[in-house]
Amino acid sequence: MRFLHTADWHVGKNLNGFDLLDDQQNVFKQIEDIAQEKKVDAVVIAGDLYDRSIPSEAAVCQLNQELYQLNLVDHLPVLAISGNHDSAARLGTGADWFARESFYLNTTLEAAFHPVTIADTEFFLLPFFGIQAVRNYFGDDKIRNVNDAMTRIVQEMQKSFSTDKHHVLVAHFFAAGSERTADSETLIEVGGLSAVATATLAPFDYVALGHLHNRDALHDDRIRYSGSPMKFSVSEADQEKGVWIVDTAPFKAEWVPLKPVHDIHKIKGAFADLVANSSQYPQDDFYDVELTDHERIPDVLNKLREHYPKIVSLHRTHAARQIALDHTQARRKQSPMELLTDFYQQTMGDNMTDQQVKWATDTLTAINGEEK
Amino acid sequence: MRFLHTADWHVGKNLNGFDLLDDQQNVFKQIEDIAQEKKVDAVVIAGDLYDRSIPSEAAVCQLNQELYQLNLVDHLPVLAISGNHDSAARLGTGADWFARESFYLNTTLEAAFHPVTIADTEFFLLPFFGIQAVRNYFGDDKIRNVNDAMTRIVQEMQKSFSTDKHHVLVAHFFAAGSERTADSETLIEVGGLSAVATATLAPFDYVALGHLHNRDALHDDRIRYSGSPMKFSVSEADQEKGVWIVDTAPFKAEWVPLKPVHDIHKIKGAFADLVANSSQYPQDDFYDVELTDHERIPDVLNKLREHYPKIVSLHRTHAARQIALDHTQARRKQSPMELLTDFYQQTMGDNMTDQQVKWATDTLTAINGEEK
Repeated sequence: MRFLHTADWHVGKNLNGFDLLDDQQNVFKQIEDIAQEKKVDAVVIAGDLYDRSIPSEAAVCQLNQELYQLNLVDHLPVLAISGNHDSAARLGTGADWFARESFYLNTTLEAAFHPVTIADTEFFLLPFFGIQAVRNYFGDDKIRNVNDAMTRIVQEMQKSFSTDKHHVLVAHFFAAGSERTADSETLIEVGGLSAVATATLAPFDYVALGHLHNRDALHDDRIRYSGSPMKFSVSEADQEKGVWIVDTAPFKAEWVPLKPVHDIHKIKGAFADLVANSSQYPQDDFYDVELTDHERIPDVLNKLREHYPKIVSLHRTHAARQIALDHTQARRKQSPMELLTDFYQQTMGDNMTDQQVKWATDTLTAINGEEK
Repeated sequence: MRFLHTADWHVGKNLNGFDLLDDQQNVFKQIEDIAQEKKVDAVVIAGDLYDRSIPSEAAVCQLNQELYQLNLVDHLPVLAISGNHDSAARLGTGADWFARESFYLNTTLEAAFHPVTIADTEFFLLPFFGIQAVRNYFGDDKIRNVNDAMTRIVQEMQKSFSTDKHHVLVAHFFAAGSERTADSETLIEVGGLSAVATATLAPFDYVALGHLHNRDALHDDRIRYSGSPMKFSVSEADQEKGVWIVDTAPFKAEWVPLKPVHDIHKIKGAFADLVANSSQYPQDDFYDVELTDHERIPDVLNKLREHYPKIVSLHRTHAARQIALDHTQARRKQSPMELLTDFYQQTMGDNMTDQQVKWATDTLTAINGEEK
């Protein structure tokens, strides 16, 4: 069989205040078109369908309409799980009715052990989970981290494996490659989050992951992130977005890119140059701007927005360099007057005048009598 | 055919801070039992399924489970609309899937004109609506009030009437009896809310209404409120709750009462008597208490709660009499000192001492220099 693997739709997300619903709708349409062109037998959505546990009414209507289109109009089986951004309880409403039309939406750990069979493949739909829920489910307090939890979960799932089927896990967590020796108790920690070792997932023919928005976050032939279908932050500006088209026999995973509707660009330069060159850039795209000017430019954000209306972030090369020198610990030891002096210098690119220093000192003295 | 008419479930409501989910679940079970005993062909829920547009996750799970039970386990067709307490967008999610299992949940004006046929009856499912939505739908700005709106809606619905069927309207609004002459433009106003005249609803064989929690709010053989299935406020303490079992041919509407789980009682008396007699009252019920004592009793609410743990409101015969004399307009003309004097007198049952008057006067003078 052949399925489309996508994840992290985050319907209803906004980008620093800019509504993305129209872009998300456009990208959905691309996914729908790919599903039809590639004649897939099912669509897998690996969690974070919504951006928030209580999405807006507009987001609710849009996702409902998209799932309606895929499942009830295009007659495609849909396999989906809740991610950490979704409220499992809210998203799961109606799932019993959906399943009767081959829209399998699982938001509970319990149901993850009952695979959905489509053609030659058993799909195990594992929603985002907390470790305590896994401890409770197995009555085992020795489960210490997410890799322990997944080890138990995979063991349990294997009991239901039909030997004549392929086995696909749909899940939403942080996975990372590792060498895992037979009796190791390696806890993989990346960025403070415990991760699932890819070796733990070896029993599956394919693992369709959601959670990380960059498909390049993991390189494993059979364990893949699809990433988000569009860029949701400046940090994703350089990522290519798309979906996987996965064939089970013979196994094959093909990457199909999605076209950004309004791209995110990182631009850098002096204010005058950015203004002069603005016609080179699509007006409706999103911009992360780095200003190289030394002097302070009053009301600079609004002035830039006349040329780049959708600036999502603005920073300055100089300020950035100074802030990079900053260490929180050192800051904590500074007096209010020292902090103010630094702040003024970074913001204005100049030192305070004697008069300003006097005003600041007098004010601070009046406030707590400690600063001289 | 025969159907059960209920409304105003308000799942997730709390009674002055007391959670009602367990009671609501019990009452639901009673409704389910009645539906089975009476062998109804459908269950009608006339709006306000939830108490809030964003219900709690627990409320979402409970209503979902109840509808699952009725529709997918008991195999009963369910006909439901959104009320003014529901978010139409949120409640309506999944409705396209539900309808395929004979759970007809309508939350849009547009769909109200496409009846659902069950056996010998066409059901028109009209959700709670705003007048502007009706103006927009018909492109008619002359619709001035809810009765105008319903006149147009009923006319439009009549176009879809099959002559060999009975016609039932399920709706959620304020309806009131009236004599309506051919060309009158009577606007019925009750409590400042415009109402739908029962005459406007005459084309229907039965109108299953939600909105008012008291089935006795309207007396019309063919236009009925079921009321809420349980008491949701002290003002409902004396109401009998239940459901209607409606037969279409020959027409018959039978009232079947629902048993309160934890009833609401209004009790009145002196503090000492209420404490002495408390064993007569079920500890777990809800109480509205009127204290007849003249003197102030310190910490009276907590003392009473030792005997009546679930007091939802407490008032005093004396304070009540004084407050009854109060007129907001007169209050507006009173000076702060006059208001304070009255307040002290009502609360403490005594006048301020000379010293207290002096303190109050000095303080008010210090605040704005106007009071002498």
